[in-house]
Amino acid sequence: MFKKEIYVERRKRLAKDVGRGLILIVGNTDAAFNYPNNVYTFRQDSTFRYFFAHNLQDLVGVIDCDSGEEYLFGEDVSIDDIIWTGPVASMLERANEIGVSNSGSLKDLAKMVDEAIDTRRRVHYVTPYRTKTINYVSSLVHIKKDYVPTYCSVELMQAIIKQRSIKSVEEVFEIEKAIATAYNMHVTMMKMAAKEGTYEYEIAGTMEGIALAGGGPVSFPVILTTHGEILHGHDHSLQIKKGRMIVSDAGCENDMGYCSDITRSVPVGGRFDQRQKAIYQAVLDAQLLVPTLIKPSVPYSTIHLAAVKRLGEGLKNLGLMKGDIDAAVAQGAMGLFMPHGLGHMMGLDVHDMENYGENYVGYDKNHKRSSQFGLASLRLGRELEQGFVITDEPGCYFIPALIDQWKAEKKCEDFINYAEVEKYRDFGGIRIEDDVLVTADGCRILGKPIPKTIEEIEQVMN
Amino acid sequence: MFKKEIYVERRKRLAKDVGRGLILIVGNTDAAFNYPNNVYTFRQDSTFRYFFAHNLQDLVGVIDCDSGEEYLFGEDVSIDDIIWTGPVASMLERANEIGVSNSGSLKDLAKMVDEAIDTRRRVHYVTPYRTKTINYVSSLVHIKKDYVPTYCSVELMQAIIKQRSIKSVEEVFEIEKAIATAYNMHVTMMKMAAKEGTYEYEIAGTMEGIALAGGGPVSFPVILTTHGEILHGHDHSLQIKKGRMIVSDAGCENDMGYCSDITRSVPVGGRFDQRQKAIYQAVLDAQLLVPTLIKPSVPYSTIHLAAVKRLGEGLKNLGLMKGDIDAAVAQGAMGLFMPHGLGHMMGLDVHDMENYGENYVGYDKNHKRSSQFGLASLRLGRELEQGFVITDEPGCYFIPALIDQWKAEKKCEDFINYAEVEKYRDFGGIRIEDDVLVTADGCRILGKPIPKTIEEIEQVMN
Repeated sequence: MFKKEIYVERRKRLAKDVGRGLILIVGNTDAAFNYPNNVYTFRQDSTFRYFFAHNLQDLVGVIDCDSGEEYLFGEDVSIDDIIWTGPVASMLERANEIGVSNSGSLKDLAKMVDEAIDTRRRVHYVTPYRTKTINYVSSLVHIKKDYVPTYCSVELMQAIIKQRSIKSVEEVFEIEKAIATAYNMHVTMMKMAAKEGTYEYEIAGTMEGIALAGGGPVSFPVILTTHGEILHGHDHSLQIKKGRMIVSDAGCENDMGYCSDITRSVPVGGRFDQRQKAIYQAVLDAQLLVPTLIKPSVPYSTIHLAAVKRLGEGLKNLGLMKGDIDAAVAQGAMGLFMPHGLGHMMGLDVHDMENYGENYVGYDKNHKRSSQFGLASLRLGRELEQGFVITDEPGCYFIPALIDQWKAEKKCEDFINYAEVEKYRDFGGIRIEDDVLVTADGCRILGKPIPKTIEEIEQVMN
Repeated sequence: MFKKEIYVERRKRLAKDVGRGLILIVGNTDAAFNYPNNVYTFRQDSTFRYFFAHNLQDLVGVIDCDSGEEYLFGEDVSIDDIIWTGPVASMLERANEIGVSNSGSLKDLAKMVDEAIDTRRRVHYVTPYRTKTINYVSSLVHIKKDYVPTYCSVELMQAIIKQRSIKSVEEVFEIEKAIATAYNMHVTMMKMAAKEGTYEYEIAGTMEGIALAGGGPVSFPVILTTHGEILHGHDHSLQIKKGRMIVSDAGCENDMGYCSDITRSVPVGGRFDQRQKAIYQAVLDAQLLVPTLIKPSVPYSTIHLAAVKRLGEGLKNLGLMKGDIDAAVAQGAMGLFMPHGLGHMMGLDVHDMENYGENYVGYDKNHKRSSQFGLASLRLGRELEQGFVITDEPGCYFIPALIDQWKAEKKCEDFINYAEVEKYRDFGGIRIEDDVLVTADGCRILGKPIPKTIEEIEQVMN
């Protein structure tokens, strides 16, 4: 964990910003895999980790905004249990490690919450996302489980978002450690992808092993596919074949819980063919444009539009699009090729703070989410600020079902050359992604550069 | 999946054994990691997979014992979703793939269950182990969630246990595939453990990567520790140091969901010292005795006692125990050194079918679980049958808190030489485990032999 002053400062600021009431920060519990005692590898809740540090099961942190007191609740290990667990710190020791003065059992917590409710004090909590936690919060605050999300504290979530959106130097250092591991994951992927006949799961599994050997889990299930056009796919069952691009979208969490999220797309066998080169370069041009535009006060939605415009220009050069590309972008034509957003916040979560609701994190009263297909999928639309860590991840896909639908509807036919698009039906997809820090006057692409140009990738793979 | 006739046969037999009513087999759903859309890698419920094969989210299988009809319930992908998912089979196609004639939506299922309840038919389900599934079953059968486990069908669970306990040739083949991957995991561990200064998580992560690259997840969180005496520990934070043994207890699931579960214990640096050699050989002698005793009709509790007796004889030779070892075993003295059981069933779960309750799986009316410390932890006590796959995993540990407790209570002091035991306080622990098939007249240790003798291990590590 960081030094305790960092957590003290974070909690103090949170109490001040929220102002009144009792703040509950509920840590995660184990999640059953195939029977109660066989569990998934524990993953702490990010909010808990941000304010109360401990990467352990079944803890609840409380900040009393009115009295200024802080508490860490959880069960001490009994003497009988020490036979099985070895020596462990007491709850009070754990509290003190992070500058919290008070500790207690979960029964004590329930009593404290009851007293707060009885005296009409506001009890703040963020929306829980695990069923077990929803049930637990329901029992603590006496709200029916289906309404636990409804009664969450928007003030609390907004105060947290304000803090967590701006990454400190220490946090950026941790993110760069996670990117260092992602470097190894993706370079290994490139080497393995050189050999036709390998199974996707062999590559994906090896990448996940590198993440784990680096000290943390993957930050999301590895996307490793020769069918990059299937955007919601996590299948890894295929043997890789020449002529297909591999889309590899994968990152890890480091031992401090900070994430990386990198995508590289490479040709099976190690050599781009002409068609792959052309689409790849169009995506890369868009991806490289983005860091030249990132700086504080620019809405990320504006940069999204600039990036898809650059992609559109590239596709026009290839004959896939036609007409006025500004108009094509305005009318949403780029959604055919890139139905997703340019990027999102990243930090302790790979989509940072997405549990609070994307619109709270990525939008605000001046920047509302678009309803246009494609742009509607952009997770981050609001103005950038110094200290944001965000992803830059344009892509280009040929999605047969989407092509058929648009073509039948004659959608955007002034801009899309469907006859030409049909020739790419079997192409698959390409996406390229880096993690970027917004600085005072621009940005910095984080981490050691991972091979990205056609030349660099072919060099690694051959 | 296996050929569909296998699933047809399994379900037919189950319907016959249960006799009457509606059997619900509820598949697993995704489990949230750090926000609703970021989930742990999906793990299908083993009961569902055994009878309904599909390794997919949000499916429910139903067998109507009275009419003989079978159903697969779940949601078809909409045309809009196909843009994101690519082409997918329909529910009816999925049903037919496994020889099930009928399919429907989850709404159809709810209606069917309501009708069954309204007409006073018995609705059978097994105890769910995930909170989300408990909530779902609660809503289906209209039983309060806290009572969903209470109202599970013991008849159904016993009928399933009867089937799943006996592994077919196809199943044993799959288990041996999982052991082949475990071979690579453990041999890699041995090579990495030769180098002092490596972190435990580097080895554990690399092992998990080998499991994943083999097509499945680990069958349980890897135990890889230089503190093997901490039996409930999953910590991997330490640098490995000469003088410590590494206990490596790890296995995987293969692409068909079948498990392996192997333990090897090796000296950091690659050479056993005299003390390590002595304890290792005592454990190995016990571990090697077990396959000579395994055969149908012998209670595994009897073999557990024979194994701990052999361990006790070894420890007596080393001066750690004294007196009559038969009496020591009878009085539970071996629990100090081996507080856990000799083994458990293994199949689609690493502790096979533990979700139904250990006592249903491992004990029966003729064989009740002992309450004696040590033996009480034996998961499988009943008579072995041809086709069981079980683990053989004795161990020997020096647990400071336990030694202190027993010594203070003067427990078993006729048999334990506490003065000598104290000299091993810093030793840690050793466990050795293989997976064994019970055959008509004995047993077969499954898989390619993984280095196990002192000589074999030192050879791999040097």
